[in-house]
Amino acid sequence: MRVIERASEMQTLVLNYKKEGKIIGLVPTMGYLHAGHMALVKKARAMCDLVIVSIFVNPIQFGQGEDFDIYPRDLERDLKLLIDEEVDFVFHPAVGEMYPPGYSTYVEVEGEITSKMCGASRPGHFRGVTTVVSKLFHICLPDYAFFGQKDAQQVTIIEKMVRELNFPVKIVRVPIVREEDGLAMSSRNVYLNPQEREDALVLYRALKHAEKLIAEGERDVDFVKQEMEKVIKMVPYAVIDYIEIVRAEDLGALDKIEGQVLLALAVKIGKTRLIDNLLVEV
Amino acid sequence: MRVIERASEMQTLVLNYKKEGKIIGLVPTMGYLHAGHMALVKKARAMCDLVIVSIFVNPIQFGQGEDFDIYPRDLERDLKLLIDEEVDFVFHPAVGEMYPPGYSTYVEVEGEITSKMCGASRPGHFRGVTTVVSKLFHICLPDYAFFGQKDAQQVTIIEKMVRELNFPVKIVRVPIVREEDGLAMSSRNVYLNPQEREDALVLYRALKHAEKLIAEGERDVDFVKQEMEKVIKMVPYAVIDYIEIVRAEDLGALDKIEGQVLLALAVKIGKTRLIDNLLVEV
Repeated sequence: MRVIERASEMQTLVLNYKKEGKIIGLVPTMGYLHAGHMALVKKARAMCDLVIVSIFVNPIQFGQGEDFDIYPRDLERDLKLLIDEEVDFVFHPAVGEMYPPGYSTYVEVEGEITSKMCGASRPGHFRGVTTVVSKLFHICLPDYAFFGQKDAQQVTIIEKMVRELNFPVKIVRVPIVREEDGLAMSSRNVYLNPQEREDALVLYRALKHAEKLIAEGERDVDFVKQEMEKVIKMVPYAVIDYIEIVRAEDLGALDKIEGQVLLALAVKIGKTRLIDNLLVEV
Repeated sequence: MRVIERASEMQTLVLNYKKEGKIIGLVPTMGYLHAGHMALVKKARAMCDLVIVSIFVNPIQFGQGEDFDIYPRDLERDLKLLIDEEVDFVFHPAVGEMYPPGYSTYVEVEGEITSKMCGASRPGHFRGVTTVVSKLFHICLPDYAFFGQKDAQQVTIIEKMVRELNFPVKIVRVPIVREEDGLAMSSRNVYLNPQEREDALVLYRALKHAEKLIAEGERDVDFVKQEMEKVIKMVPYAVIDYIEIVRAEDLGALDKIEGQVLLALAVKIGKTRLIDNLLVEV
């Protein structure tokens, strides 16, 4: 496994592999890898000749006052995990390599899909995501790129970007990986103290409660959202950012629960903002 | 020569040629081809194994009240000209193929480079250009893309976009082609009546006058701009949009005339907005 820090070197390497007809897989990450990331890597390893994992904590997707500076990093541990999965290249650029002085080019998906849910509480976040993903796609030129269903809004936006800008890349969605007790894997889980770690289960509990109601025949969006809210409020200090029930395909609003439906929520447990979601087919 | 209307078909074709190691050249145009375009095509033909010319009048780079609807089109004539130059593919998509319903993804270079000069009088114009060029780059996957120096601001912006988004594309600038009397070739010249056609020479005359002053040692930006203005005002009904003397590399402001300098102007002759420019090395 080789670690590459320069965009031009990474691109030149990949162009040569492509000339040989190799199928390239890219797993974009911000590092501090957990079992959720590793599921993406394993999927890429199974599907592609050459697997590139990018590790880059992308400053432009963090807002003012968010956790860019303290976002957990452990490159050495990450590299060991990736060697074990027989990854070929790690692309690990410095911030100045990705955004040199005077940088001013951005890729943006406009509209409700980026302005609601996480977009409402994190303005500019998805513009930062679509910009860095565009850059990574041009640098690594993947045939397949792997994203986790954990960030459901993110992957839906990236799919729209790929379709609308005609990127020659296929997006592969990989299901959420959970701890044994149901907490969705996240690098930010490390912020939780033991009490918060236990209370964080309330997100998954709210989703499973909603899933059960829907399985029992409930179709009223607002009612199910209220029921989810009740579950969250069993942790008195939890602060709900949003609870949404939307069309999975484009995150559009629903009159009633039918078709492929995404249940999604963001909740602050102490200082840590957690997200989770569940897909339901009605 | 084949004419392709579907983005997916074009992309699939190109991916196959790339597997064979072919070097791809793209000449993006809005059609109604003139000798300026043909200089780009000839350059592409000389440098590449496979030459693609795109013909697409891009609605999102036209503002409200601009000439999108009446922009001159003559596909049949264009195709004949391109056959003569042994072009391999013409990519000629419909508007709905490029921008299907619900389309909302844009690529934007922000800052003075896009907000001054043509960007000031045509807000959103360059966002439309960088978006369509990004799409064309992904659809046609060129190794080289050819742009005319006539649209100096456009090609400077595209170079910045390519650099900052890490597109694996090399931009080739091709010098302005002029009529015998000096008028820069433009599809919009067809709008000019005989009197306007004669008066349109004032743009080139102003540029040549400035070039002469600089050759004689003049270094004062404002003085040279005033001198250019005097030349334009010899056509009393001409309306100056802008006259600029800027750093060629990034269109940045200059304290004095030195280095690689771009003299650029936009002037309305009757209803027709014309642009022209000249590079000067001091």
